[in-house]
Amino acid sequence: MTADVVFVGGGVIGLSGAWAAARAGLSATVVDPAPGRGSSWVAAGMLAPVTEATFGEEHLVRLLVAAAGRWPDFAADLGSATGTDVGYRPCGMVVVAADPSDRSVIDQLLGYQQRLGLAARRLSGTECRQLVPALAPGVRGGAEMPGDHQVDNRKLVGALLEACGGAGVTFVADRVTAVVTGPDGAARGVHLAAGGDLPAGAVVACAGAATPLLDGVPPGTFPAVRPVKGHVLRLRGPADHPLLERTVRGLVHGRPCYLVPRADGRLVVGATSEERGFDTTVQAGAVHALLDDARTLVPGIDELELEESMAGLRPGSPDNAPFVGWTGVPRLAVATGHYRNGILLTPLTAEGIAAVLTGEPLPPPLDGFGPDRSTPTTAGHVR
Amino acid sequence: MTADVVFVGGGVIGLSGAWAAARAGLSATVVDPAPGRGSSWVAAGMLAPVTEATFGEEHLVRLLVAAAGRWPDFAADLGSATGTDVGYRPCGMVVVAADPSDRSVIDQLLGYQQRLGLAARRLSGTECRQLVPALAPGVRGGAEMPGDHQVDNRKLVGALLEACGGAGVTFVADRVTAVVTGPDGAARGVHLAAGGDLPAGAVVACAGAATPLLDGVPPGTFPAVRPVKGHVLRLRGPADHPLLERTVRGLVHGRPCYLVPRADGRLVVGATSEERGFDTTVQAGAVHALLDDARTLVPGIDELELEESMAGLRPGSPDNAPFVGWTGVPRLAVATGHYRNGILLTPLTAEGIAAVLTGEPLPPPLDGFGPDRSTPTTAGHVR
Repeated sequence: MTADVVFVGGGVIGLSGAWAAARAGLSATVVDPAPGRGSSWVAAGMLAPVTEATFGEEHLVRLLVAAAGRWPDFAADLGSATGTDVGYRPCGMVVVAADPSDRSVIDQLLGYQQRLGLAARRLSGTECRQLVPALAPGVRGGAEMPGDHQVDNRKLVGALLEACGGAGVTFVADRVTAVVTGPDGAARGVHLAAGGDLPAGAVVACAGAATPLLDGVPPGTFPAVRPVKGHVLRLRGPADHPLLERTVRGLVHGRPCYLVPRADGRLVVGATSEERGFDTTVQAGAVHALLDDARTLVPGIDELELEESMAGLRPGSPDNAPFVGWTGVPRLAVATGHYRNGILLTPLTAEGIAAVLTGEPLPPPLDGFGPDRSTPTTAGHVR
Repeated sequence: MTADVVFVGGGVIGLSGAWAAARAGLSATVVDPAPGRGSSWVAAGMLAPVTEATFGEEHLVRLLVAAAGRWPDFAADLGSATGTDVGYRPCGMVVVAADPSDRSVIDQLLGYQQRLGLAARRLSGTECRQLVPALAPGVRGGAEMPGDHQVDNRKLVGALLEACGGAGVTFVADRVTAVVTGPDGAARGVHLAAGGDLPAGAVVACAGAATPLLDGVPPGTFPAVRPVKGHVLRLRGPADHPLLERTVRGLVHGRPCYLVPRADGRLVVGATSEERGFDTTVQAGAVHALLDDARTLVPGIDELELEESMAGLRPGSPDNAPFVGWTGVPRLAVATGHYRNGILLTPLTAEGIAAVLTGEPLPPPLDGFGPDRSTPTTAGHVR
């Protein structure tokens, strides 16, 4: 049987895209040796359009704000479809400064965020400690972003796998090595590492940073994404006495750091940003840096269990924004380049993928985020 | 079948004791739910009578020096019996100081060690870096202990398991809850957690820090040992470009630290000393402290993979010395309290256990290290 569409990569983008495609009436297959166990598994699950807002990225900020707006309904839909609570937690975020220079950087960003109309307010050190009693006495103040939230990315992965199964999505536990094209140059399926081809009416390449490694298409078909390594730690404390009730981000002598508390007492601490190619080795220096910065902000982490140390690869793009849309190879679409915002962008990207495949217009927030930013594209939809 | 002797605990002490007993012609059984996977697995394998020498412990130092002298033959015997190279590596040790105060402590210890006639010489910072090029530029000098060596404790565990198997030692994968005594009050075997008794002609309690938890005997039968938690990290680098060629110990602002290089590029970093009862949780603060100190001495560890973070429980005794000999319960012997020196003391302790069981005199270095230091004892041997 030929699927209407095959998804190359079963991270949150591939899984949510396949679920959306299936709900739009398409038959969908996801190919991944270990669905949901790549960067989606390592991520922290912050839904943070405001704290991620950076100078010169107004375009991206608008996309992230729109993406955040999708989350309450998306989490509810997933909950209805699967009975799984994905841990969508509108807990807000506090950003704090370890030293006066960090404070100055946060103040500058705060002004920018406020000029963009984003919900953010300045906090004194005392106000920070009122919101987050576990903060170190030395914290020099910061800001509150009441609209930046979180989801449990691992519960999200589990729910998406279940939702896909329930919607009839097929899974192939293999790795795609190449896109298969016909005499007309259009995508007709994929070639599997184990051998053999999987025919499909269309192909969506959503393998994160590994997307451009796919063979079988002309050079330049895929937009320029690259792996940006991020170390993340998972700590564990008692669920009944959580150290933190809301996400704490911080700058520690110029180095960014976050601590995302889960309802079960776990705490996700991240993240480094390293240009090291396709390397997911957990390095001693990175673990040290994360612990050093996190305990500078919240000394109480010393007592928590260090449950996991991992590294994942963000799909970084030249302008830090994603690519969603058709490539220059007919019937080959792409959804990658989500960089630091893959979890946040999941619901909107899934909508976009479904729209692309069914010939509907893209959701307006995704306008301008096609791969034509960096590559020539064509058009083509499944029906 | 009734074994001549049952060993409660299959760490290096129980395994080496059982091997020695079997070689002395006794039938031996080792009871342990996971032989070799307790503190023996977490250990670093330093054979360091000189660098462990501490003020007021002359008695213990003499024991440790004698124990170190047993190692070349013991490693060779194990190699002959099993074909396994246990990684006995006469690489020497360098002890270095992170600051002038650390230097002063090392100098005082050095004087003490030299007064005891131990092989140790003072090194300038430059001399330290000549011996260990990977040392941080800020290291303030130290000392060399050319006779302090190492063994790969995990290879040791593997070889002992194999040697025991080859010598006919029986293994029972269970936990002992109690010593079983007869109407005469003498030990007759052990009771298993899974239910049922295991009869034996004699019992050797060698369950490390858990030894005093054994039921079935009068209070005070076992000497006072307690768990002293130690976090240890295992890093991994390239085998062909090892960061270190010899063991580095150091004091970092008063905190002790060691880095033990293995031939395969691995590096064991330890260790904390914590009084936390029977807790082997890996804690964020301890991992941070170890990394912080180790990279202060050898900055290059930042690039190594952090392969494992673990915690084990040293069997600490009131005077930091072991207890080997009969207890006050006839036919119940004990071998525990090895504290920081379990691997070093393994060959000598095994000799001692075999001597006790066969009614031979203890090896002279073990004189004075019976449990009668803290408890009343009796005598009794198997044959």
